[in-house]
Amino acid sequence: MNLPAKNLNLDLDIPAADDVPSLQDIVRPIARQIGAVEDVLESFCAANEGVLKDSCGYILLGGGKRIRASIVLFSYYMKSFTGKTENEMRGGRREESAVSIAAAVELIHSATLVHDDLIDRSVLRRLKATVQVHFGDDLAVLLGDYLYAKAFEIIANAGDKEIASWMAGVARVMCEGEIAQINNRYRADVSEHEYFSIIEKKTASLISVCARSGARLAGMSLSEQENLASFGLNLGISFQIVDDILDILGSEKRTGKTLHTDTESGKMTLPLMILARELDNEDKNIFLKNFRAGTISPESLRSLAVEYNIAQKARMYADEYYKKALMCIDNFDNPVKGSLIDLSRFILKRDY
Amino acid sequence: MNLPAKNLNLDLDIPAADDVPSLQDIVRPIARQIGAVEDVLESFCAANEGVLKDSCGYILLGGGKRIRASIVLFSYYMKSFTGKTENEMRGGRREESAVSIAAAVELIHSATLVHDDLIDRSVLRRLKATVQVHFGDDLAVLLGDYLYAKAFEIIANAGDKEIASWMAGVARVMCEGEIAQINNRYRADVSEHEYFSIIEKKTASLISVCARSGARLAGMSLSEQENLASFGLNLGISFQIVDDILDILGSEKRTGKTLHTDTESGKMTLPLMILARELDNEDKNIFLKNFRAGTISPESLRSLAVEYNIAQKARMYADEYYKKALMCIDNFDNPVKGSLIDLSRFILKRDY
Repeated sequence: MNLPAKNLNLDLDIPAADDVPSLQDIVRPIARQIGAVEDVLESFCAANEGVLKDSCGYILLGGGKRIRASIVLFSYYMKSFTGKTENEMRGGRREESAVSIAAAVELIHSATLVHDDLIDRSVLRRLKATVQVHFGDDLAVLLGDYLYAKAFEIIANAGDKEIASWMAGVARVMCEGEIAQINNRYRADVSEHEYFSIIEKKTASLISVCARSGARLAGMSLSEQENLASFGLNLGISFQIVDDILDILGSEKRTGKTLHTDTESGKMTLPLMILARELDNEDKNIFLKNFRAGTISPESLRSLAVEYNIAQKARMYADEYYKKALMCIDNFDNPVKGSLIDLSRFILKRDY
Repeated sequence: MNLPAKNLNLDLDIPAADDVPSLQDIVRPIARQIGAVEDVLESFCAANEGVLKDSCGYILLGGGKRIRASIVLFSYYMKSFTGKTENEMRGGRREESAVSIAAAVELIHSATLVHDDLIDRSVLRRLKATVQVHFGDDLAVLLGDYLYAKAFEIIANAGDKEIASWMAGVARVMCEGEIAQINNRYRADVSEHEYFSIIEKKTASLISVCARSGARLAGMSLSEQENLASFGLNLGISFQIVDDILDILGSEKRTGKTLHTDTESGKMTLPLMILARELDNEDKNIFLKNFRAGTISPESLRSLAVEYNIAQKARMYADEYYKKALMCIDNFDNPVKGSLIDLSRFILKRDY
């Protein structure tokens, strides 16, 4: 890949760059609709009883960023805000579906978090104990299933067969990505190609389908849907690269979740690959040996990453995918595009 | 409930009663369609790679009884075999959907088996090591998710919004049942009402939706759909009672799965409730104390169950639900009804 020439100033120990609006400001234009998504999730939690009510509330109402829901909604409004009256009415009727789909993708995302935290043995998520630590492993297995099932119920009731098929397909592909990752555990020779294939499956595919679904619900052409899907795919790759940097260099207090799980569970990520490339032969052999043994200490890894400017180098890849993402929506001419760009910049530059 | 006066001869250490045809004979009228279901499952397995291909094949192609698929298909033919030409054509077009839905319910069922075996720490399923023993806990979590996702993809592509909603709803309800069961672990005072509520959710609801979906795909009236759904619900309850008897008195060689998990994991089932009622005060206290501690030995439980005729007494309940099930399809006048009755008798009288 061609790396961008520009060097970015992205020290991860300082808060997100000043020129990026806060997430709260970015989603202001869809505050009402995000509120409606929260209402769907809250009603779902409230309809449960006992440990199911507690655990649903615990994972769903504990301050997720709602990035995926926002991408559904912003993508939806990339068309309907242009609005002829007839279109607006049509938009009005389908806005409810967009809110439902946005809530459903948050449920799917939460289900993957619960099961991934279980598999990674993570203890912290959103500054709280993870579901399996707080409620036990068995509940974590079943709660994940429960959230998936509720998501597919909402999706079925939204009544769009295509979207239902995409969503189930992407849930399947996410599992494929996670399983490929498990298969590669403690393998130091994972290629960049394998890495990108895995993060496309486990992370970017869902963000892509979020954008595509919003586009379809707004009645966009197939080529517009395709453009937004590609936007989401590239943005999702950029998202995961930043996540993988944060796993090494982020702050647990700031991200709210257990970090250093990648080296502990033997996941070869892009920043680790870059580091291995940068090290001289002897240090590289020691590093790879420790990686394969799962014995890299977070502190020494952080020192090495700082010494070799790994964050900056890995962020150049993320920046490349961010730029590709924006190119995919270049042809759209809609005030909402600015929000989608801000959200993309937030994803790129975030430190949590 | 009113127990039937008739005493059944149901010693579980001998094979299923002679007057019940073999499963193979029962499903002969739908052998072609069950073959098509197997083809769907085999193609799905073959489309995967590596450990995913191995693990899918391991759980999906290892000799399940296909009872749920058979109920979808027999229910479907409860109408379309009567056949005006027009109806038959319509039946023909939707037969493909019935096969898809039948394959999807086997995927959902398999997903629940994988996750339930993980939760129950079962080691044996279909005479082989369970998925988590053979492939590890992490793969078991993800394989279950993968099978659910594939099921919902097939269901979405079948294109019936109602059925998609029912299936997702039932996947949700099954989790509710499992979670309620976990909540009740080692509680000796679970009521019969609670027990029936749990088995209705965790087992009978899916069998009910199988029958309802077949009915809908065949274009039956809402009242006919309702009748078949009630048939499935009662049959499913009878199914689970027999399962709970087999957990105490069945043979692992014959059932092919780990038994005695109910007492080990503190699940209060109907046969255990009946036994507790039959014991005199002192023995009852010892029994309940051991139940709460999870220290009942399989051998002593089996002896007590034989001594107090527990299988026979619990089978009277199962028989009651079997009869209710048949009453629900009393108004149907179709040659396929005989197959559905035979299948119900097989479920009632099986020893595996």
